[in-house]
Amino acid sequence: MAQKELKEFIDNASQIYLSHLSLDCVVFGFHDGQLKVLLLKMKNSDRWSLPGGFIKQAESMETAAIRVLNERTGLDSIFLQQFHVFSDPGRSDNKEKNAHLRRAGIAVPAGHWFMQRFLSVGFYALVDFSTVTPQPDAFSDDCAWWDIGETGQLILDHSRILFKALEVLRLQLHYQPIGYNLLPPKFTMPELQKLYETILGRKLDRRNFHRKILSYEILRPLKEKRQGVAHKAPQLYSFDTIKYQKALKEGLGGI
Amino acid sequence: MAQKELKEFIDNASQIYLSHLSLDCVVFGFHDGQLKVLLLKMKNSDRWSLPGGFIKQAESMETAAIRVLNERTGLDSIFLQQFHVFSDPGRSDNKEKNAHLRRAGIAVPAGHWFMQRFLSVGFYALVDFSTVTPQPDAFSDDCAWWDIGETGQLILDHSRILFKALEVLRLQLHYQPIGYNLLPPKFTMPELQKLYETILGRKLDRRNFHRKILSYEILRPLKEKRQGVAHKAPQLYSFDTIKYQKALKEGLGGI
Repeated sequence: MAQKELKEFIDNASQIYLSHLSLDCVVFGFHDGQLKVLLLKMKNSDRWSLPGGFIKQAESMETAAIRVLNERTGLDSIFLQQFHVFSDPGRSDNKEKNAHLRRAGIAVPAGHWFMQRFLSVGFYALVDFSTVTPQPDAFSDDCAWWDIGETGQLILDHSRILFKALEVLRLQLHYQPIGYNLLPPKFTMPELQKLYETILGRKLDRRNFHRKILSYEILRPLKEKRQGVAHKAPQLYSFDTIKYQKALKEGLGGI
Repeated sequence: MAQKELKEFIDNASQIYLSHLSLDCVVFGFHDGQLKVLLLKMKNSDRWSLPGGFIKQAESMETAAIRVLNERTGLDSIFLQQFHVFSDPGRSDNKEKNAHLRRAGIAVPAGHWFMQRFLSVGFYALVDFSTVTPQPDAFSDDCAWWDIGETGQLILDHSRILFKALEVLRLQLHYQPIGYNLLPPKFTMPELQKLYETILGRKLDRRNFHRKILSYEILRPLKEKRQGVAHKAPQLYSFDTIKYQKALKEGLGGI
């Protein structure tokens, strides 16, 4: 977005968007055993932020989140999940907001819409990062995938939002299936295990994983084996779509 | 709250509370094999609603929710959990809001703070309903425990909020321990199973439940048995507090 467009956004925001409500997206990217997160570099600064945005006067949170993410990633079918409202009254630091605006070459008067307290609704998603071309927004001059744990201190409370999303994603592995949009349609057990290990950030016992994941009854073992493997070709699996969808709704295994 | 206080609330709300943001609480009550939900009866109407309220200008969502619940239940240490933001632009039905105000004897001008679109943050809690004395609020003339499934159609989208909370609570059984504040300090396996069955709304296999719940390692079998039982006194258990807290944070069993 050029300087002129940025100024227009600031001038008209209070007419277009709801006051004191924003959203922030934690987009986790998985590919080939790596877990990354999508971040924006603030203009003329070395500080990074989560992609986020505001909610139009007559828009649902979900529509707003999908719009924001589409602008940042080009993806239009990301499955975004609300996970928490961040509402600490001290989270909107006006000194920090002013500094970012100044570096972007914008000045706003005291009492401007942008200087209100903002509560932010956190969304998270997990995508295959090899399918995404990141796009900076009006406040940023770079958008990139960062290794989890190497992001440093993000702006405002964004490090806390990222950490909370990771906690929720890790908990989610206990009760919802995962992997449908992250693995090829036919995959091996070690590939699926690697996905879980990458998200959890720790090694899992091969036998326990095998036994547990089969007990969920969301996998179909295929008759074919992987081609072009020298010897002992590994068993291939695919997800049982109907049981996968049912488990998404009702939970895995459990009591 | 008397009529005068209600009018004061409506007159001053825009100075005290954030605009277009509310919260609604789904308080589930468990006791002796029954699952209930706390509802308010709208003044001079036969429609019921979830207890809810607004967020003060410099208050966090959590502080606001605890304040609202304390006013309705007298409890000050309820563990409330955010579960969803309800943000459908059509959810604030002004015709319905006006009708409720009219029945409460209050008229507000068009464009009043109360007539805005409201997004609502849903919280849920699970308490022992035998410990709670329900209190009506300014808009209601009764506050009572209702059997889940017998509530009829609640106001606005409150039936949807209740249904969503029940879905989240049932999913939660798959990955977090439950029962600490709902069972006596020493309890039997059938008592714990009854809690799960009541929340899930279905019977569970006794052996599977026993095996599964012990595999979570959150229970301590006690040396003593229940007193005053004629023959075959049942084994008593208590929760292992440290492991229970750990499982709350990191999830149960799972992968």
